[in-house]
Amino acid sequence: MSLKPKSAEESRAEMTVRMFPSDANPAGNVFGGEILRQIDLIAGLVAQRHCKKNAVTASIDRVNFLKPVLVGNALILNARLNYVSHSSMEIEIKVEAENLFTGARTLTNTAYVTSVALDEAGKPTDVPPLLIVTEDDKKRFTEGEQRMLQRKRERKH
Amino acid sequence: MSLKPKSAEESRAEMTVRMFPSDANPAGNVFGGEILRQIDLIAGLVAQRHCKKNAVTASIDRVNFLKPVLVGNALILNARLNYVSHSSMEIEIKVEAENLFTGARTLTNTAYVTSVALDEAGKPTDVPPLLIVTEDDKKRFTEGEQRMLQRKRERKH
Amino acid sequence: MSLKPKSAEESRAEMTVRMFPSDANPAGNVFGGEILRQIDLIAGLVAQRHCKKNAVTASIDRVNFLKPVLVGNALILNARLNYVSHSSMEIEIKVEAENLFTGARTLTNTAYVTSVALDEAGKPTDVPPLLIVTEDDKKRFTEGEQRMLQRKRERKH
Amino acid sequence: MSLKPKSAEESRAEMTVRMFPSDANPAGNVFGGEILRQIDLIAGLVAQRHCKKNAVTASIDRVNFLKPVLVGNALILNARLNYVSHSSMEIEIKVEAENLFTGARTLTNTAYVTSVALDEAGKPTDVPPLLIVTEDDKKRFTEGEQRMLQRKRERKH
Amino acid sequence: MSLKPKSAEESRAEMTVRMFPSDANPAGNVFGGEILRQIDLIAGLVAQRHCKKNAVTASIDRVNFLKPVLVGNALILNARLNYVSHSSMEIEIKVEAENLFTGARTLTNTAYVTSVALDEAGKPTDVPPLLIVTEDDKKRFTEGEQRMLQRKRERKH
Amino acid sequence: MSLKPKSAEESRAEMTVRMFPSDANPAGNVFGGEILRQIDLIAGLVAQRHCKKNAVTASIDRVNFLKPVLVGNALILNARLNYVSHSSMEIEIKVEAENLFTGARTLTNTAYVTSVALDEAGKPTDVPPLLIVTEDDKKRFTEGEQRMLQRKRERKH
Repeated sequence: MSLKPKSAEESRAEMTVRMFPSDANPAGNVFGGEILRQIDLIAGLVAQRHCKKNAVTASIDRVNFLKPVLVGNALILNARLNYVSHSSMEIEIKVEAENLFTGARTLTNTAYVTSVALDEAGKPTDVPPLLIVTEDDKKRFTEGEQRMLQRKRERKH
Repeated sequence: MSLKPKSAEESRAEMTVRMFPSDANPAGNVFGGEILRQIDLIAGLVAQRHCKKNAVTASIDRVNFLKPVLVGNALILNARLNYVSHSSMEIEIKVEAENLFTGARTLTNTAYVTSVALDEAGKPTDVPPLLIVTEDDKKRFTEGEQRMLQRKRERKH
Repeated sequence: MSLKPKSAEESRAEMTVRMFPSDANPAGNVFGGEILRQIDLIAGLVAQRHCKKNAVTASIDRVNFLKPVLVGNALILNARLNYVSHSSMEIEIKVEAENLFTGARTLTNTAYVTSVALDEAGKPTDVPPLLIVTEDDKKRFTEGEQRMLQRKRERKH
Repeated sequence: MSLKPKSAEESRAEMTVRMFPSDANPAGNVFGGEILRQIDLIAGLVAQRHCKKNAVTASIDRVNFLKPVLVGNALILNARLNYVSHSSMEIEIKVEAENLFTGARTLTNTAYVTSVALDEAGKPTDVPPLLIVTEDDKKRFTEGEQRMLQRKRERKH
Repeated sequence: MSLKPKSAEESRAEMTVRMFPSDANPAGNVFGGEILRQIDLIAGLVAQRHCKKNAVTASIDRVNFLKPVLVGNALILNARLNYVSHSSMEIEIKVEAENLFTGARTLTNTAYVTSVALDEAGKPTDVPPLLIVTEDDKKRFTEGEQRMLQRKRERKH
Repeated sequence: MSLKPKSAEESRAEMTVRMFPSDANPAGNVFGGEILRQIDLIAGLVAQRHCKKNAVTASIDRVNFLKPVLVGNALILNARLNYVSHSSMEIEIKVEAENLFTGARTLTNTAYVTSVALDEAGKPTDVPPLLIVTEDDKKRFTEGEQRMLQRKRERKH
């Protein structure tokens, strides 16, 4: 429950999911919506690992589907915290598709999800600060802060 | 298969989905990812109704989750075409949550999904033009065009 | 909670569902049972919208499967109240299958579901009267009443 | 593939299914639609065991839900052939709910499903005659024949 | 709640499950994991029928997959108690695959699951003794006892 | 397709899965069968990554459920190859449960799955040898070989 700073390393997550026929249209292309669902699941996991409370998704930035994912592929999701402020956490998710017969991996999406920690009454509540350990952590934090400000500006319109 | 213009009215869709415990965290909040999955499903339906071909999701703009959706709520999705150009279609989706015990409905999300029509070889293929019927159709088309240009600019960075 | 009369228009619902390979036998015919499940779901939604309480299915009249529904089709369900009496509500559901590549729609079923409103102790409880607005509402109410009497007669045997 | 007569004993089936929270409304009552789906699944199994071909559901007679089924209950379905004629088979399904903590079983439904055997082109095709072995088989066959005639009469209206 | 001895006949169960495309890899082979899930479900059912309490799986002995199970097959599981001691129950499960087009059945697995009865605080609690009725019951009890001792020896290493 | 030796590092996998109410009995204990299903899924993934062919589960050694897994926990599975010989691969899977509110992780299972690679005709086919890189790799290979011999001996009885 304490708000002792934690590093991004402590909450990062990796998830591998096989894509089934029920995840795709008859042509074999996995629905974007199924990929978005997995992105949200892993973002929630990272957020809860950081804040140790319930966390809900407040927004997801634009997601481009760069390459088709096909039935039988494994979807590999890597997620980590970039930025935190008060009750908000920005999680970056990298999604790759792996063809299990060739081993080839292709980047299919990068996504930014904003999660908000909730207390037991369902109100936003502060989360532990993010401990900056590496140069990369620092760069991500600064960029995450800029995106957060941009989201606030756009929400006002 | 013909590319005779069609109105947005011909492809619009409405979908009502009950939210189950398996769609939510233990506090009863429906996962954002489940809502994104439903948004993508209805967008694909509208796109296919317009182009009568396979259609895949190319991108989804930022989605804000304005209000929590709870287990037992009905999710009501309304989707319609705003803009089409070559193989691309912009679909606008309005999501509301309905409390079945009070009848109260709250707007939870507005989303813009870009779908691309594919021919049988899986290549992008032209879709029928959008017939502008009402003043509202016209306004939506112009705004959709601006968002599409904005997406292209942002993709270049 | 009040028992102010409500029109059928206030509780009607429309639902669109894509049929997946897991809903069908290997020949591609969607299982009748999956269609029955969707019929029951939308009937429950209409019933709950009218009574604003828990509602359970008491019976479903004979359902004929007029045309096969195939994987990839969209199932379109329209449901509305025909008749209410004490704690019972008769909901009529019209089911169509839409071929998304041709746009063709075929009527696949018409069903009558009887729902019963339950209070918090799980006992049947009165529902708001049905407001008769149109000539069609009146005709449906009279026919619904006759079917209800017929069901009671048949239950006695 | 031969049309050698077979007894009802050869195709009968028993199925036990645990009811999960996702099968019920928040008050714990299992949706009627989930029970109908299971009834259809076991009817299809009995039909296919008899005809050794694809079989689809042509109709289900009125189903009354006599007692509530609750989350955690086991649903026990017993299904057998009553009557066959040309490509049609009438299957009777008895559904009981078992409370696993007390062992109490209650009859919740009796249903009659008509299945039709299909050849590889999807056309109705003759099924093996039903071998009458016991007095009970004979009684069921006669009653099944009467229900089939009744269904035909009612379909004409 | 009483600990009156009960026969294995009183708790035995039979379950038939259709295998869907979502249960298999693209080559049509049903995942072993799906079969293991069904084995565990039926074992839990038999255990709960015997003890009338919550029961959880403590272990499953080695399972060999003797023959492939294919999409469209029916999986037939038969489960019965072999041995009980204090809070532990050994359930034997025989799994067969049935090809619905030929009627051929092949044995695919035999499994031994050990379940433990839990009281309301989640602690192991005694279950009713097993009533030995037939010679076969006796043989199974003795063999089950030997397997239980073997499991204990191996757990110590 | 080549049979160039590969290290265990190249095929190892990590998977994180949230446990839902539908994975558990009403007391909140996740079904052992659901855990077995996840164990089999990750084993298949590691096997396919190593052999780049279809792979099916031939057996799973005894699995003990050391600690209960509860709804809301994250299940973390780590899997790696220990031993390969001809068409057989032994995969070791370590399963932990993580309480997302405290961050506590407990070991719940260790499992050994044997997978067999299949060629396009569905026959067993040789897989790449396992490259021994570390001392730990060597120890695991030797122990895996002994377990494989033990399985063969026990299968003869």
